[in-house]
Amino acid sequence: MKNEVVHAIQDDYPDDFAWCFGCGRLNEEGYRFRTGWLGEETVTYYEPSPKHIAIPGFVYGGLIASLVDCHGTGSCALALHRKNGFEPGSGEAPPRFVTASLNVNYLKPTPQGKLLKAVGKVEEIHPKKWKVTVEVFADETLCAMGEVVGVVMPSTFAQNE
Amino acid sequence: MKNEVVHAIQDDYPDDFAWCFGCGRLNEEGYRFRTGWLGEETVTYYEPSPKHIAIPGFVYGGLIASLVDCHGTGSCALALHRKNGFEPGSGEAPPRFVTASLNVNYLKPTPQGKLLKAVGKVEEIHPKKWKVTVEVFADETLCAMGEVVGVVMPSTFAQNE
Repeated sequence: MKNEVVHAIQDDYPDDFAWCFGCGRLNEEGYRFRTGWLGEETVTYYEPSPKHIAIPGFVYGGLIASLVDCHGTGSCALALHRKNGFEPGSGEAPPRFVTASLNVNYLKPTPQGKLLKAVGKVEEIHPKKWKVTVEVFADETLCAMGEVVGVVMPSTFAQNE
Repeated sequence: MKNEVVHAIQDDYPDDFAWCFGCGRLNEEGYRFRTGWLGEETVTYYEPSPKHIAIPGFVYGGLIASLVDCHGTGSCALALHRKNGFEPGSGEAPPRFVTASLNVNYLKPTPQGKLLKAVGKVEEIHPKKWKVTVEVFADETLCAMGEVVGVVMPSTFAQNE
């Protein structure tokens, strides 16, 4: 099952939290990023569509930022879920994170038509605040590096639904 | 003409550079952000569609990152164009920037259904490298702050078209 996430954390989000344009499995118009474990690291694969360009031939930086963002919050959720004793696919609802900060450094132009692979390393800053460093590859080429600080979704979100 | 950009820098990009998913006027599936001057600051307005949510009721952070990104590169282009003696709408092709780095701090959840307004302050770091600090408001509420470092598009981009 190379280049494929079998058990993604987003598969286990409750339906009410599965509408994210980036990674909600129920948002049919969104990217539907899926994030899982790859050993001790996390991974999200994505192949941009032809419309997702900056200029012809190169992927739009906003898509890469979106990939880093959702890969980051998904990685935080994976890590806290594991800390709590669960893995995606276990049927247990995972924690849901929101992004406190997002940083992306674009190292080189990202060619269109390649499979993108975001790889993350997760670190606990505080039980409710985690940091993920992300590398984005197009095939084997490192094109961008990012960092996401995620926090456990505040209850104010649910109250406003 | 409140809450509307009359002369956007993106209106003047050559057709070959007008396909960005974020701000390309020719990309019918994209966001089509439009960035112009508002006094000495720059502005982009955007109303997210219902699909652009993180969870129901709140705007997707990746869209805000995309808005900051394109508002940033557009602001760089506006500033260098003005330094070169031109304004959008003059008919002169503006310089085109790419993003070197993007940073977004999410201050509070961004409510769905409001007009977003990105406001930028542009600063020259080097003739080919500019920095833009960006504030994103939903109506009058400051929801996110960002920073974009843009560089004049390298010739390698055009060579790969």
